[in-house]
Amino acid sequence: MSASSVDLNADLGEGYGVWTLGDDDAMLDIVTSANVACGFHAGDPARLVRVCRAAAARGVRIGAQVSYRDLEGFGRRFIDAAAEELAADVMYQIGALSALATAAGTTVSYVKPHGALYNAIVTHRDQARAVATAVHAVDPGLLVLGLPGSAFLDEARELGLQTVTEAFADRAYQPDGQLVSRREPGAVIHDLDEVADRVISMVTAGRVTAIDGSTVEIAVKSICVHGDSPGAVHIAAAVRDRLTAEGVTLAPFS
Amino acid sequence: MSASSVDLNADLGEGYGVWTLGDDDAMLDIVTSANVACGFHAGDPARLVRVCRAAAARGVRIGAQVSYRDLEGFGRRFIDAAAEELAADVMYQIGALSALATAAGTTVSYVKPHGALYNAIVTHRDQARAVATAVHAVDPGLLVLGLPGSAFLDEARELGLQTVTEAFADRAYQPDGQLVSRREPGAVIHDLDEVADRVISMVTAGRVTAIDGSTVEIAVKSICVHGDSPGAVHIAAAVRDRLTAEGVTLAPFS
Amino acid sequence: MSASSVDLNADLGEGYGVWTLGDDDAMLDIVTSANVACGFHAGDPARLVRVCRAAAARGVRIGAQVSYRDLEGFGRRFIDAAAEELAADVMYQIGALSALATAAGTTVSYVKPHGALYNAIVTHRDQARAVATAVHAVDPGLLVLGLPGSAFLDEARELGLQTVTEAFADRAYQPDGQLVSRREPGAVIHDLDEVADRVISMVTAGRVTAIDGSTVEIAVKSICVHGDSPGAVHIAAAVRDRLTAEGVTLAPFS
Amino acid sequence: MSASSVDLNADLGEGYGVWTLGDDDAMLDIVTSANVACGFHAGDPARLVRVCRAAAARGVRIGAQVSYRDLEGFGRRFIDAAAEELAADVMYQIGALSALATAAGTTVSYVKPHGALYNAIVTHRDQARAVATAVHAVDPGLLVLGLPGSAFLDEARELGLQTVTEAFADRAYQPDGQLVSRREPGAVIHDLDEVADRVISMVTAGRVTAIDGSTVEIAVKSICVHGDSPGAVHIAAAVRDRLTAEGVTLAPFS
Repeated sequence: MSASSVDLNADLGEGYGVWTLGDDDAMLDIVTSANVACGFHAGDPARLVRVCRAAAARGVRIGAQVSYRDLEGFGRRFIDAAAEELAADVMYQIGALSALATAAGTTVSYVKPHGALYNAIVTHRDQARAVATAVHAVDPGLLVLGLPGSAFLDEARELGLQTVTEAFADRAYQPDGQLVSRREPGAVIHDLDEVADRVISMVTAGRVTAIDGSTVEIAVKSICVHGDSPGAVHIAAAVRDRLTAEGVTLAPFS
Repeated sequence: MSASSVDLNADLGEGYGVWTLGDDDAMLDIVTSANVACGFHAGDPARLVRVCRAAAARGVRIGAQVSYRDLEGFGRRFIDAAAEELAADVMYQIGALSALATAAGTTVSYVKPHGALYNAIVTHRDQARAVATAVHAVDPGLLVLGLPGSAFLDEARELGLQTVTEAFADRAYQPDGQLVSRREPGAVIHDLDEVADRVISMVTAGRVTAIDGSTVEIAVKSICVHGDSPGAVHIAAAVRDRLTAEGVTLAPFS
Repeated sequence: MSASSVDLNADLGEGYGVWTLGDDDAMLDIVTSANVACGFHAGDPARLVRVCRAAAARGVRIGAQVSYRDLEGFGRRFIDAAAEELAADVMYQIGALSALATAAGTTVSYVKPHGALYNAIVTHRDQARAVATAVHAVDPGLLVLGLPGSAFLDEARELGLQTVTEAFADRAYQPDGQLVSRREPGAVIHDLDEVADRVISMVTAGRVTAIDGSTVEIAVKSICVHGDSPGAVHIAAAVRDRLTAEGVTLAPFS
Repeated sequence: MSASSVDLNADLGEGYGVWTLGDDDAMLDIVTSANVACGFHAGDPARLVRVCRAAAARGVRIGAQVSYRDLEGFGRRFIDAAAEELAADVMYQIGALSALATAAGTTVSYVKPHGALYNAIVTHRDQARAVATAVHAVDPGLLVLGLPGSAFLDEARELGLQTVTEAFADRAYQPDGQLVSRREPGAVIHDLDEVADRVISMVTAGRVTAIDGSTVEIAVKSICVHGDSPGAVHIAAAVRDRLTAEGVTLAPFS
């Protein structure tokens, strides 16, 4: 499988109050979709309006990066929230960001869960259903962005939501297509050329080399580049340049 | 001035997690408009969905009761927030509640600031403008509910928002139409009959007796009854019964 | 095994801001040890000072009821916190309550984890060690209160902390001495006489009937009565009266 | 008046979770006293333990930098907290940091309010008294650091607390010894040499040139250098080097 067009997404708006994280403006010049924090793991409202405005000015599409309520842990800690609570928390965040997007002259067009929630709902069926149900209840026209084969995308599809699969530019994969845990050695790829090579392989050939050397089929419509790691802007720009050089158009998924 | 119809509003959804405050269901059987908390001074999202559902089931209209971010102080403490921050916080809350209302099959149709914010923007011009601007930026079709003569209603009108004036059933008034501060003796009227008498006078004659015995002209489209004080349901029911007995229709403002 | 003396403990200070939970003053007239919230699942500082003062006035001993940081979920949701974070959060809470206790003329003499943290560290070795390490680092003279056989008490003992075992007055037990989960039928015993009978059996005979009818050996120095359920004060008083009637002295563990 | 010895203090531990602010380690190599955040405006507990350990390793003294509860606003917004609430919040923070300091093998020896609270209690008598009362109630041996002539230092002295006056290395002064508001032009001095010259004048001659050119008498035992502004480490090092070059010993106040 090959694609002449792919989306590039990154997490943005992840500072809070006086605290910044990453370079939102630089990343907005690179990506086609911005996963904007919603205040539960990061993102004070005033910052989020500014990010939405900056995204609107560049025609970058906005997604709601919903999270567990956990500023202290940056949403990176699993919380055993009941389905009803989690669903309401997700609705709340989508709505909050939507209002800020409206004030900035744009709209929220998709939802991408963040951090521990993203990881949990790869397999946690109850929480996956809660998140999908919440998205659907707020607006069935919202797309959801997630890992191929995840319980979350399953549940979303079952509700009639349009799903979009993504791959990670700088993360190692297991032979079954799952991500190698960050606790394992080799989980994150730091070499710029290797990252770019892998993205090209995923986008144009529909496959990537797993950590054990085997080949994994991977059909993705969006590539996630990290916005907050050291050198993040550099890596993202390299991915974008390489894709363009190979004749791949960068455009939001639809 | 007299009115054959008036709205009755109360604050609802003001518990948080395990904590409850007032009797939301009982109050929803009495009022025509529910000022629903938005999570900043009270109101966890799961509770707010339930309150919105219960309001929808009874045809009670929903307003966003926006607040300073202050769970510990229940939004009763002035916070010297900058205009940009406050505006974004207000947008965030309106959007969050709107999504929960949507999930509950209803909509947010007006905004009423809560507690210290309500009091501050009677006179605090910058914050009043910030709140009005926020409402307008999210949805210029939203109505705003406030004190007659307040800076908030002025600013809202200037932006083209439709404003609705309210009076308080159990609060004493100064000769100039302002509320007597809760720190003053006699600020809250506890006698059931007196409360009902005053409401009838405000609604049918457009006037009320001030704390110094003088008469204040007061043109209101909505009466606020408290939802959380001891005996709140009792007082609210008495006001409703008396209005009905006097031939006044209870209906949401429009 | 029998005891001529036992401690009675309950959770207190579990309101927050305007929100109350249970009747702290009534419970303080009954118990000998108060597990006082520390602000992470409940307990604003002003309330906690008042509870500490009321406990001091009655000679009731104070323990720090440490929790995951989770106001919305009242500390009832497992959070997958890293050991270093959890340990620091626990130290923070113990210190905070200690200062409030000092201001109230008393001291914190023990630590009892709350809710999901209490349950998690029955078996979660890393978190159990983190909590025990935190207690020891702040003050090795602090006692810890927990479930017999829990990883938490193991880890605490290994560090040289003095441990105190407790039993629950109104909870059903499994044959192995663990609590029946609240999600199972029969997990909570509501009959006043049965609760009192069970407590007498636990305290004077060192055994209790498990949910399957078998007998469980249970050696406890403290009995936990709930402070927040409907009828909590009634049940606690019944347990106290019955213990006194059977000649058991109620006194803090030491 | 002249001094052969002076203290150098800076705000530290002001990140939160993933977010950092300033370079704590570099500043700890320069200052003699560290105003460590207490979690209300910044400072997650795990970070605070690390800062306390790093301070202890260098023999830098620790103070509790207490604040209004305001992560979103970094404690820079006045909150109209009631005296009882504010006092309890301050006690809570001092105790929390004290426990973390104990775990790090050191102690909290003074208190310095942060941001809007610092500014408010220069003149806000009720809040000044609340903070002083809180410090005294937790430990009357704690010193307090503040602005000469402030209500806070007055109230602290009246309670028998030992007070320490400080001056700001890079802030302009009014003729009456008060700081020029940050909203005014010229409020912050950016020239490295000018900052160093002013500090030398304050420390060795007991005076400084006010913004209008007049001379202000200023008797201080500690100089505050900022830890979070761009170039903060550079300025702090310049101040330290210049003081040393002029024969002034840098040592904690006592």
